[in-house]
Amino acid sequence: EAVAARSKELGAASHQTIDARADLFDTILRRLIAGNVLRGNVYPLCVGPERVIQAQHVAQAARALGCETVAHGSTGAGNDQVRFDVAMRIVGDGLTVLAPIREHSLSREDTTTYLRERGFHVSSKTTDYSINQGLWGTTMGGKETHDTSLGLPSDAYPGTTAPADAPDHAQTITLTFDKGIPTQLDGEAMEPVALIEVLTQIAGAHGVGRGMHVGDTILGIKGRVAFEAPAALTLIAAHRELEKLVLSRWQQFQKAQLGDFYGMLLHEGQFFDPVMRDLEAYIDASQERVSGEVTVELFKGSARVVGASSPHSMFNTGVATYGETNTLWDGRDAAGFTQIAGIQAFLASRAG
Amino acid sequence: EAVAARSKELGAASHQTIDARADLFDTILRRLIAGNVLRGNVYPLCVGPERVIQAQHVAQAARALGCETVAHGSTGAGNDQVRFDVAMRIVGDGLTVLAPIREHSLSREDTTTYLRERGFHVSSKTTDYSINQGLWGTTMGGKETHDTSLGLPSDAYPGTTAPADAPDHAQTITLTFDKGIPTQLDGEAMEPVALIEVLTQIAGAHGVGRGMHVGDTILGIKGRVAFEAPAALTLIAAHRELEKLVLSRWQQFQKAQLGDFYGMLLHEGQFFDPVMRDLEAYIDASQERVSGEVTVELFKGSARVVGASSPHSMFNTGVATYGETNTLWDGRDAAGFTQIAGIQAFLASRAG
Amino acid sequence: EAVAARSKELGAASHQTIDARADLFDTILRRLIAGNVLRGNVYPLCVGPERVIQAQHVAQAARALGCETVAHGSTGAGNDQVRFDVAMRIVGDGLTVLAPIREHSLSREDTTTYLRERGFHVSSKTTDYSINQGLWGTTMGGKETHDTSLGLPSDAYPGTTAPADAPDHAQTITLTFDKGIPTQLDGEAMEPVALIEVLTQIAGAHGVGRGMHVGDTILGIKGRVAFEAPAALTLIAAHRELEKLVLSRWQQFQKAQLGDFYGMLLHEGQFFDPVMRDLEAYIDASQERVSGEVTVELFKGSARVVGASSPHSMFNTGVATYGETNTLWDGRDAAGFTQIAGIQAFLASRAG
Amino acid sequence: EAVAARSKELGAASHQTIDARADLFDTILRRLIAGNVLRGNVYPLCVGPERVIQAQHVAQAARALGCETVAHGSTGAGNDQVRFDVAMRIVGDGLTVLAPIREHSLSREDTTTYLRERGFHVSSKTTDYSINQGLWGTTMGGKETHDTSLGLPSDAYPGTTAPADAPDHAQTITLTFDKGIPTQLDGEAMEPVALIEVLTQIAGAHGVGRGMHVGDTILGIKGRVAFEAPAALTLIAAHRELEKLVLSRWQQFQKAQLGDFYGMLLHEGQFFDPVMRDLEAYIDASQERVSGEVTVELFKGSARVVGASSPHSMFNTGVATYGETNTLWDGRDAAGFTQIAGIQAFLASRAG
Repeated sequence: EAVAARSKELGAASHQTIDARADLFDTILRRLIAGNVLRGNVYPLCVGPERVIQAQHVAQAARALGCETVAHGSTGAGNDQVRFDVAMRIVGDGLTVLAPIREHSLSREDTTTYLRERGFHVSSKTTDYSINQGLWGTTMGGKETHDTSLGLPSDAYPGTTAPADAPDHAQTITLTFDKGIPTQLDGEAMEPVALIEVLTQIAGAHGVGRGMHVGDTILGIKGRVAFEAPAALTLIAAHRELEKLVLSRWQQFQKAQLGDFYGMLLHEGQFFDPVMRDLEAYIDASQERVSGEVTVELFKGSARVVGASSPHSMFNTGVATYGETNTLWDGRDAAGFTQIAGIQAFLASRAG
Repeated sequence: EAVAARSKELGAASHQTIDARADLFDTILRRLIAGNVLRGNVYPLCVGPERVIQAQHVAQAARALGCETVAHGSTGAGNDQVRFDVAMRIVGDGLTVLAPIREHSLSREDTTTYLRERGFHVSSKTTDYSINQGLWGTTMGGKETHDTSLGLPSDAYPGTTAPADAPDHAQTITLTFDKGIPTQLDGEAMEPVALIEVLTQIAGAHGVGRGMHVGDTILGIKGRVAFEAPAALTLIAAHRELEKLVLSRWQQFQKAQLGDFYGMLLHEGQFFDPVMRDLEAYIDASQERVSGEVTVELFKGSARVVGASSPHSMFNTGVATYGETNTLWDGRDAAGFTQIAGIQAFLASRAG
Repeated sequence: EAVAARSKELGAASHQTIDARADLFDTILRRLIAGNVLRGNVYPLCVGPERVIQAQHVAQAARALGCETVAHGSTGAGNDQVRFDVAMRIVGDGLTVLAPIREHSLSREDTTTYLRERGFHVSSKTTDYSINQGLWGTTMGGKETHDTSLGLPSDAYPGTTAPADAPDHAQTITLTFDKGIPTQLDGEAMEPVALIEVLTQIAGAHGVGRGMHVGDTILGIKGRVAFEAPAALTLIAAHRELEKLVLSRWQQFQKAQLGDFYGMLLHEGQFFDPVMRDLEAYIDASQERVSGEVTVELFKGSARVVGASSPHSMFNTGVATYGETNTLWDGRDAAGFTQIAGIQAFLASRAG
Repeated sequence: EAVAARSKELGAASHQTIDARADLFDTILRRLIAGNVLRGNVYPLCVGPERVIQAQHVAQAARALGCETVAHGSTGAGNDQVRFDVAMRIVGDGLTVLAPIREHSLSREDTTTYLRERGFHVSSKTTDYSINQGLWGTTMGGKETHDTSLGLPSDAYPGTTAPADAPDHAQTITLTFDKGIPTQLDGEAMEPVALIEVLTQIAGAHGVGRGMHVGDTILGIKGRVAFEAPAALTLIAAHRELEKLVLSRWQQFQKAQLGDFYGMLLHEGQFFDPVMRDLEAYIDASQERVSGEVTVELFKGSARVVGASSPHSMFNTGVATYGETNTLWDGRDAAGFTQIAGIQAFLASRAG
């Protein structure tokens, strides 16, 4: 509503508000869960996926209105210009894409002055941190993020409780997944978007999901971001442990590698490269048996997986238990296996 | 000393105690830090590396004594039989390796009865959990680890404080790395082995390093382990954030993939496959510029990296800062880059 | 028919001949084309895929007959025992699998003597080379294959013309692919199995498809095989060049890596690991636009791709031609791209 | 000499001819052999490596002369602008790099007219094919390369005999490698550069090394090139077969993947990304045991490896021969191995 009002105030001929959260989940976020995608092992992709979906909807809306040109406010310094430009050109099918702040090298002072001279209010609060709030998480840039040795002050995280201020007692929740998609929270069925929003509140109240990450920007320099993403970090931690029960060693190995690559290209605005469709086919296929329940303990900034179970578990099958006798092999089989498992290394050592 | 005494009691002709901790660090652990190796994203390889080094030293000691045969107590059910057999055969150069418990399919009851009948004391305490304590961490197996839905009770972790019982105030420490190797703790120079042992105490007192992991055993079934590894988890978290400052995007991408593969083969007893030497060359080369300081906050079970700095940082170079104007490119360059970065996806969409 | 007669002669109660060639193609061979799978860059998987399909059909036929046990003639030395055992146990659902030659350590002399003593004829021709003829190629083992410095004599290849004896004039053929599947030869529509059989004759007459390969066997030792696979090598060469027109750089990069892995696991009898289903989803998705025509010149042992075209080509799109002016970018864009493309390496060199 | 004369004619104040062939081999080509690097499985990197070395030497010479600016003749359409710009900026340490043809969007007609108006001769022969001749191979672009369905006419290859015109009798040569580096041809020791040049003649006379390749250019469009690289293709084929004797399965698997990645980044002008140093450490380490002899048959366009031998061969070790009885395991071991090798797939099928 604030954006709609601002839009009107600034003289827009018309304004549309599009709720693309379900599309964001179905198109991308479910693959980030399935792929356990965390950049640099810590950062859920809070911003990159949103930009793709935003660009798609903007381009489609522009086309529907008969527009031939769209504009976005990206500078020439960051990642978003690439994500917006690439997506709008491909989806927009001939749409001209303008980025006036980049093209005229406008600074934040330039744009603030321009708006104020014309009588528009510009909040000075934006000077400390640049905040981007989205379904998958919130990012904060500014001040301390420019010096890699500094952490963000505890109160600069807008939506989560500081771990030190979180409840002194842990809260245990249960997440249910169906083919890799979170479908229930504490036994209550929810649409994924609603589940993410509720989980953001619950886990955020325990200080879960805060972090900082130094990443490689699309243009090659390093960038640093602070974030809070309670639902993303909790869901990925839970999903990953569930997968350990139902996926083979090779399924996990390959998906870890491909998930990381998927995340890298998504971050870099390459969502429309056809390799992403191939990777999605892989990721989706891998989730066939990823159904079950995971128990997670939330406490003072941590989401700790207590346990998981699945009807497709390869663990408690009754045929074998690690470290105990079993029906799949005997000691003589094991001796034969062990003998042969070392042959390549043995031959190489002899051929030295 | 307890082992030496027990050895004598059981009738050993002689007993040697070998301190191979420095060898363990130099040969393997430093590569696990450099490679940020955590199985399934959570489990530091507490056991696998030890077995390799133990087997090497046992085989060498046996050879030095003129032995032609060595024996180990592995069952036919687990990972260690493979690690011991493979390593002893390769290093032992003709040594015969016996595993009587596997060969005669002896159960724990069988061996307990055998020993008690001969007048030896066998602690009944071992029935709850099988504990393996080492430099890189301690593992616990038994009871709850056999049911994937259950967590271990808080007091089953022998060496760390429960997060709930940890101090109410965070402790901030500084770790210094030199070419990927931890060399100082809070500014005090230490040998890596000593640093790990001190850090185990400090971080463990804050409840850091506890976890559970379901993994794929070498023989193919799933296995579950509880562990506490405060130093390993803290060092890897710190090292990984330091690397983000000094490694290129491709260095990080490739090392993440290769580090995971290195960890998998190490876990599976394949340390002597020559591919491991090639991977070590890669890993070692990548650490050339991984020097600097990392600040970590320890609190109620978490080791949170606050910040990092390095003389080789690609971040604060003065030539460019993310999201700000810089001397490396201007808006027109960025527009050109953006235009071209989307060409493959654009062509593919047109060639659909 | 010879096998059916032999079966009757040896006293089989009944004999079934199953034509599983179409199943072999649909289940596996089309993925080997799509993945451009050649072990060690030269060897099409002539044997491994057959074994999987054979084992499946044998197990299903045994189940249909109400059998509880099946047997196969593999020794304990090679790859096939693993492929047969693993496949039959999984597909056979409780079927007992016997391998008497392995279990009783019978040598070829043992089995020959046994049969001859009972009045059965055993050809002595089999002593030179062990030949395995299949749809995807023929392999020969024996004599020279045991000494890696020796090549097979020209007349030891049973089904192809020696390159030196091949026609003095090249033959040019056209292959048509539809979503990665070969559908036409010289403009004539054929079922894939028929196309492979016809192409085997045509290309084989030009000496195409002969080779030798040293590979790693499943049990760890090295093995060497001579082969002739005219259709496989021609189809893969053609398919690969067609893909270069229609796949993005990342599609090719990832599929090359995954195709190699798929081939390795298939070779090693791991067809039923669920990772293979995930990889097949990837491979199949990648073929969406791999349709078009490829011209191949067959001459004196070589299959040389002359050219390829596709309605989905990213090459001749009219928007850009390599090395010429184009409508996708101008010199200023290129300068910007070039500036930014070198930033990571530049920063790393400055941070040295 | 022609270049030196032309340089003088065009008014250059001074001219230097630098022979950087040995540097090219030591810095890059030996890694392309070690990595068996062929883009798209067919194209040796004839051009990319040269550009890096040229740029380095030009930048160093410019610096030695006290220059502050260098210029190169790349257009804005191709790969070389990126390779030159990136390399010169990094090595040149502050050198300004000009590319006037790109900056002023000059066409070939523009530059030809400019030169002719000033009285300089411009050969009109260059209009058919743009030829780049180097140590590792020669590339041809133009005419047929712009239509992917067309092959180059046989006489457009400047330095090799057409396969149809090559000798009717095969020539067998022996190549000796020492730690991956070719050191002898037919038993005669040669420096690598000399060996490549001699082998180019010998293999080229048999029509070996011709090919065409459609690749992804750095700027994203597809490009097609014809090439002849007799030495590169022969050396890589020979080296690859030698490696099969001495490297473990995992060594080959990983190096194939990393070699492909190394070639991609080299092609794309990213030689100075530090990941390339890490990859070189890997590649170099892998060559420790890659010594031995390879016999290659050259005939009518093909270089066919006959056999290979090595003092470090894992093949003929006397302990085991594929398909025969051996001293490393017996049938019972094999049965145990086989039983256990199928466990993951079995459990997954049961957990379906």
